[in-house]
Order: sequence, then C-alpha cells, then structure tokens
Amino acid sequence: MESVSYPDPNIVHDLGELRRLNPLTQCITNVVVTGFTANVLLAAGASPAMVIGIEEAAEFARIASALLINVGTIAGADSRAMLEAARAAHEHGTPWVLDPVAAGALKFRTDVVAELVTLRPTIIKGNASEIMAVAGQDGGARGVESTQESGDAIEHARSLAARTGCVVAVTGPIDYITDGKAIIAVPGGHSIMTRVTGTGCALGALMASFAATSPTPLRAATAACAVFAAAGERAARASQGPGSFAVCFLDQLAMIGAD
Amino acid sequence: MESVSYPDPNIVHDLGELRRLNPLTQCITNVVVTGFTANVLLAAGASPAMVIGIEEAAEFARIASALLINVGTIAGADSRAMLEAARAAHEHGTPWVLDPVAAGALKFRTDVVAELVTLRPTIIKGNASEIMAVAGQDGGARGVESTQESGDAIEHARSLAARTGCVVAVTGPIDYITDGKAIIAVPGGHSIMTRVTGTGCALGALMASFAATSPTPLRAATAACAVFAAAGERAARASQGPGSFAVCFLDQLAMIGAD
Amino acid sequence: MESVSYPDPNIVHDLGELRRLNPLTQCITNVVVTGFTANVLLAAGASPAMVIGIEEAAEFARIASALLINVGTIAGADSRAMLEAARAAHEHGTPWVLDPVAAGALKFRTDVVAELVTLRPTIIKGNASEIMAVAGQDGGARGVESTQESGDAIEHARSLAARTGCVVAVTGPIDYITDGKAIIAVPGGHSIMTRVTGTGCALGALMASFAATSPTPLRAATAACAVFAAAGERAARASQGPGSFAVCFLDQLAMIGAD
Repeated sequence: MESVSYPDPNIVHDLGELRRLNPLTQCITNVVVTGFTANVLLAAGASPAMVIGIEEAAEFARIASALLINVGTIAGADSRAMLEAARAAHEHGTPWVLDPVAAGALKFRTDVVAELVTLRPTIIKGNASEIMAVAGQDGGARGVESTQESGDAIEHARSLAARTGCVVAVTGPIDYITDGKAIIAVPGGHSIMTRVTGTGCALGALMASFAATSPTPLRAATAACAVFAAAGERAARASQGPGSFAVCFLDQLAMIGAD
Repeated sequence: MESVSYPDPNIVHDLGELRRLNPLTQCITNVVVTGFTANVLLAAGASPAMVIGIEEAAEFARIASALLINVGTIAGADSRAMLEAARAAHEHGTPWVLDPVAAGALKFRTDVVAELVTLRPTIIKGNASEIMAVAGQDGGARGVESTQESGDAIEHARSLAARTGCVVAVTGPIDYITDGKAIIAVPGGHSIMTRVTGTGCALGALMASFAATSPTPLRAATAACAVFAAAGERAARASQGPGSFAVCFLDQLAMIGAD
Repeated sequence: MESVSYPDPNIVHDLGELRRLNPLTQCITNVVVTGFTANVLLAAGASPAMVIGIEEAAEFARIASALLINVGTIAGADSRAMLEAARAAHEHGTPWVLDPVAAGALKFRTDVVAELVTLRPTIIKGNASEIMAVAGQDGGARGVESTQESGDAIEHARSLAARTGCVVAVTGPIDYITDGKAIIAVPGGHSIMTRVTGTGCALGALMASFAATSPTPLRAATAACAVFAAAGERAARASQGPGSFAVCFLDQLAMIGAD
C-alpha cells in the first residue's frame, strides 16, 4: 500500500487560499450539528449557508461555491431537497461532498445515499463502516459509529474511488484519502474528538469549502483532515474535557496557519 | 411522605455500568437542544443517535438500547415518527423516556402526549406543571416553564406512576422520582441550570441511557438526576455565567465518577 | 442625516424592565441558531419558547409576550407556520420582529418575506443587503452575508419604515435604527461577532423580547443593539477566538447592567 503523508507547505498554502476566497458553502446537514458546523466554517475562514428547503436548495446549489450533503437526520422531505441540490451541483459543476452518516445501518438512508452517489459527489467522506456500506460491503455500523478501523476500509475506499471517480476519505484515528490511485494518510487529532458531537460532520463541511478553493479534490480532502488534526491536537492540550475542547477547537481553527 | 436520598455507592456503580455498556440512545428531541443533548450523552459515556425521520424512527427503536421522546418543538410529521418509534419501543421492549415539554400549555402536544402515555414509557420526566398536566391536572404552565414547585406535584406524580406503571420524575430545585410506591428526593444542582437551554431536555436523554443499563427504571431516573446535580454543582463553582457553565458542565460530566 | 447615540441611562432601565418582566418570547427561527438564540435570551433575562409547528404556532403567538420570525432555513411547511403566527400576532397585538435572512438572494423566501411584511412586524431587522431587498432595491446579497455597508441602507430603511409603519434596524459595524423619522446609530460590538453563527439572529430575538417590555419599538430595537454591542466588546476582550467569544458573550450578557 502506497501511503504518503501530506506535505505541510501545501496545507498552509491551501488554507491561505481558503481564507482569501472565503467560499460560500451550502450545508444540507443534520439538525444536531448545524450550529457547530457553521461555527467551524466561520472559524476556519469559509462562509456557511444552510439553505435546505426544497424550494431553494437546488437554486442555491448553482450559486454556492460548494455543497455539503450529510444525511445524519434525514427524513422524506429532506431527501428530496438533497437529491435536487446534488443534481443541480452535478449539472452546474459545483463541487460537493457526501457524508453518508450511518449508511448501511438503516434502509431508507442507504437507498438515498446510493442515489446520491450516482450524482457524482466530488468527495465521499465517512467512517470505515459507512464507506464499506457505500462500497457495497457489510460495514457493521452501530448507529452512527463505526465498528471497523479506518485501515480496514482502505481497499474498499480505493475501489469505490476508482469505480465512481469520487475522492473517498475514510476517517478514524488515522484518516485515509484516496482518488483511486494515491492513498494519503493523515494521522493526528485526538480521541476526545469522538466525544464531541459534530466534529466528523463539520469535517465534511470543511472538505466542501476546500473543494471550492484547492487545486484537486484529493488535496481538498487532505487539507481539511490535516487542519482538523492539527487544531484538534492543540485544542486537546488546551482543554479539560469535551466541553472546553469544542470551544478551544474553534479558537484553534481560527488561529491555525497564522503561525 | 417517604423521602429517601439515593445512596452514593449505587450511583457510582451505575455510572460505571453506563460507561462500560455505552448504550446506543435514540433521541427524537426538539431542534433547540439536539447538539447539547448529544454532547451531554457523549460526555457522560453514552452513545447518542438522533434518528428522527418517519422512515427510520421505528426501525431504529428496535435496534437502539433506549429511546428518548421529547415533544419540545413538535410538529405534525414529528408526532407520527414519535408515535411509531414509541410503539416499536413498547412492542420490542426497548426502554423509553417521555419528556412532555409544555404539555398542558398547548392543545396539539397535550393530545400527542396523552397518546404517547398509552404506549407505556419506562419513565415520564417533566417539571411540575408538565407532570400535573399529564396526570390530568391543570398545571398552569407558562410556555416551557413551570409555575409550580416540584414538591407540589409529588402526589400527582405518585398517582400517575401507580396508574400507568411508569416511573415518574418531577424536576426542579429538588428532583422527585417515584415508581408509585417509593419517592426519592435528589437535591443539588444549581439555579444557573435554568438559564442554560437544554439542561432539562438532556437530563431526559440521560435517563434513557441509564434505563438501558441500570437494574430498575427508578434507579435509572435517580442516577441521571444525581449525576446532573453533582456535575451542575461543580460546574457552577468553576464558571462565571451561563456560557461558561454549559462548557464546564460537559467537562464535569466527563470527569465525574472517576474521583 | 440626524444621528443620535442612544443615551445610556435608558438602556440600563430598559434592561432592568426586561429582567423584571421576563417576557415569554416565541422564536420561529432557523435550525442553525435555535440553541444559541435560546441561550442568549436566557442570559439576557428573557424567556424563550421555540413553538414552531403549524398546529401550535398561531395559538402560542396569542399567549406569548413577543414573537420572532427568522426565515434563515425556511422550507414550505415552516412558511405556513410563520404566516399563521404572524397573522395571529398582528391580530392579537403581540409585538413581533421579522428577520428576513437572505431576502433578495433567493426567490421563495423573498416572496414569503414580502407577505410577512404585510402583517406589519413591529420591527424589521436585517443587514444592509436584506433591508434593501425588503425595501424593493437590489441589495446584492451573497448568501446570508451583506455586500453593502449598513450606512448605505439608511435612506432605504427610513423610507421602508415610513411606508410600512415598522421600525427598521440595519445591522453592521454600526447599527442604525429608524422609525421613519428619527435615526439612531449604535456603534460598538466587535468584528469577531461576524465569525460566530447566530449573533445576528439572536439579536433579532432579543429585539422581540425588548419589544414586549420597552416603551416604544424604536427604544426596544435600540436597547437590544446597545446591549449586544456592550456585551460583544467585553467578550472580545476576554476571549481568544470565536469559540471562547461565544461563551464569554453569554456570560457578559448575564452580567451586563448589574454594574
């Protein structure tokens, strides 16, 4: 397995570009993490816009710099807005990220996710169970949590990427990102991030922002993972528990790259 | 009135069990508190899953370790998902908690709550006005706030518990929990908790988590109240206002019991 | 242009009245900011109630002390609840605030906002692009952000206020509030507030709370802006980034006026 750590200079440059261009990032995400996701994008230097209604979602996907679709709390009406927005993004060339939360664990969302995948997300981002489910394997999800290690899903991620043309990111203690050929490993972060809701979901949103400003989707997904890992490590050192971690994490996201 | 303080050794043991078993807790709750509720469960040691769509809610209630239904921001479609999930939990034996937010103050939710009660929640948790409304009394609710003291609702709670077979918890400066026979008083906490949104709602979610791992529903509700009271007292001492309180509260929830 | 800074003694008095009367403030707002909005109202001394379902919104608008309608994440069903609640408020005399988030940028919400304006909000609050759009100008909105300075919208705001009878507040580095005759300028706050989601939305909610307890809508909107500006300045001094700012801001809101 070819495994390359992402070189730091590019991350710093890509983060500078993100901040300079301040990409307008439409987020159709779950109701648990909307506020935190918006705050993560604002702290990092992007501009969130939660335009979610069926009457507006597709119209906005043609205006926005990037789109995130996260199926975490999907219900019927949401799924139609998601599909229309993804179709508009696909047709219009707006880069978009799919976060197939708990795919494989529940039939309805698994079907919606399969339909969304046909609309060619720029990046598919999930934990090992989710990526395996999207790749057609039994990922053994337990609700929104993975029962698999990210490393176990690498080969499924690579074949999914090769088959669909999407970049695939498998998150975990080490994140793996692949375009079907290269595989990039991003270590770092901190285990406390699994005890703060929305860190994974916000990472998907930041991937969308980077997809609007980075030279390639592979680099976009990698930059988002690397920024999260670095901010997470710093915030873990500066905090006493999951409450103060979430606060410090936003502060660190805003500071990172200036040093 | 028989009033027994809950003995500490059991709480510590029950909290240890909660953390060991990490119960998957489905939350169908209001949109104001979803993020805070998830963070409270994660900090305490449970695993939240906000599966709320009508297409999935009942399916997941059969997989989950426990279920919370909180009617805080109920609308028509939500109410159908709540009823289906509660029915699935009831039939499948999944313990579930009902938080009848503002029952009595508004007709629609009062009717939905009455129907939910027929599906035998394991625990009904509310402030004095809400519990009195569920018990068929005029509780005089003012929006989501109680106009009654928790002590005033004890006898209504006891008769409601005796009649339905549910454990009933009345929250307030002192929380009272009853299974229709015993009444347990849990003092503690801090008045600043009334100035942070979601503390009461997250308490209902933690009761659901404990209901999956504690030996009895009475002990589950009591353990959740006691953990909240202790973490609330500690966080009040370590914070400067309602913003820092919420942060410290999550930190303290994660630390509590280790000492 | 007549420009008057709001005199401090009135603010302190109005804030004292808000806290004494603790107005029950119904918020039909976007899903990104519900939790933060509730926490802002609780910290400042008001009582939030997010009653949003079509089955209850109008009923509650007759009970509540004030109503906020914020169209940030509007979808079809929400818009009907908003219109019914606004109609109930209008007929019953409940003061209500309209926050036309991203009006002008998207057709559906622009139409709903136009219909809401016919129901005579007590206060219309928006950034320069939004107020210009409501006034029938091309405001050049970029998603939820303004591309205009607040000062550029003053004359549009004044004519909108004169035509509709609403007080109009244009937010920005300097906030301008007008009843069609007087124009009040409220400087202050801090640029970091633009990097924390929900500060603008929560300001609209606090205007609604003040509208229930202040002698005039002009004074209500001004008091909310002034309280936000002062708490924002203090919080900026006490924080390290956008995460800690949001926490400090709630703490400062609770403390302000006691000194």
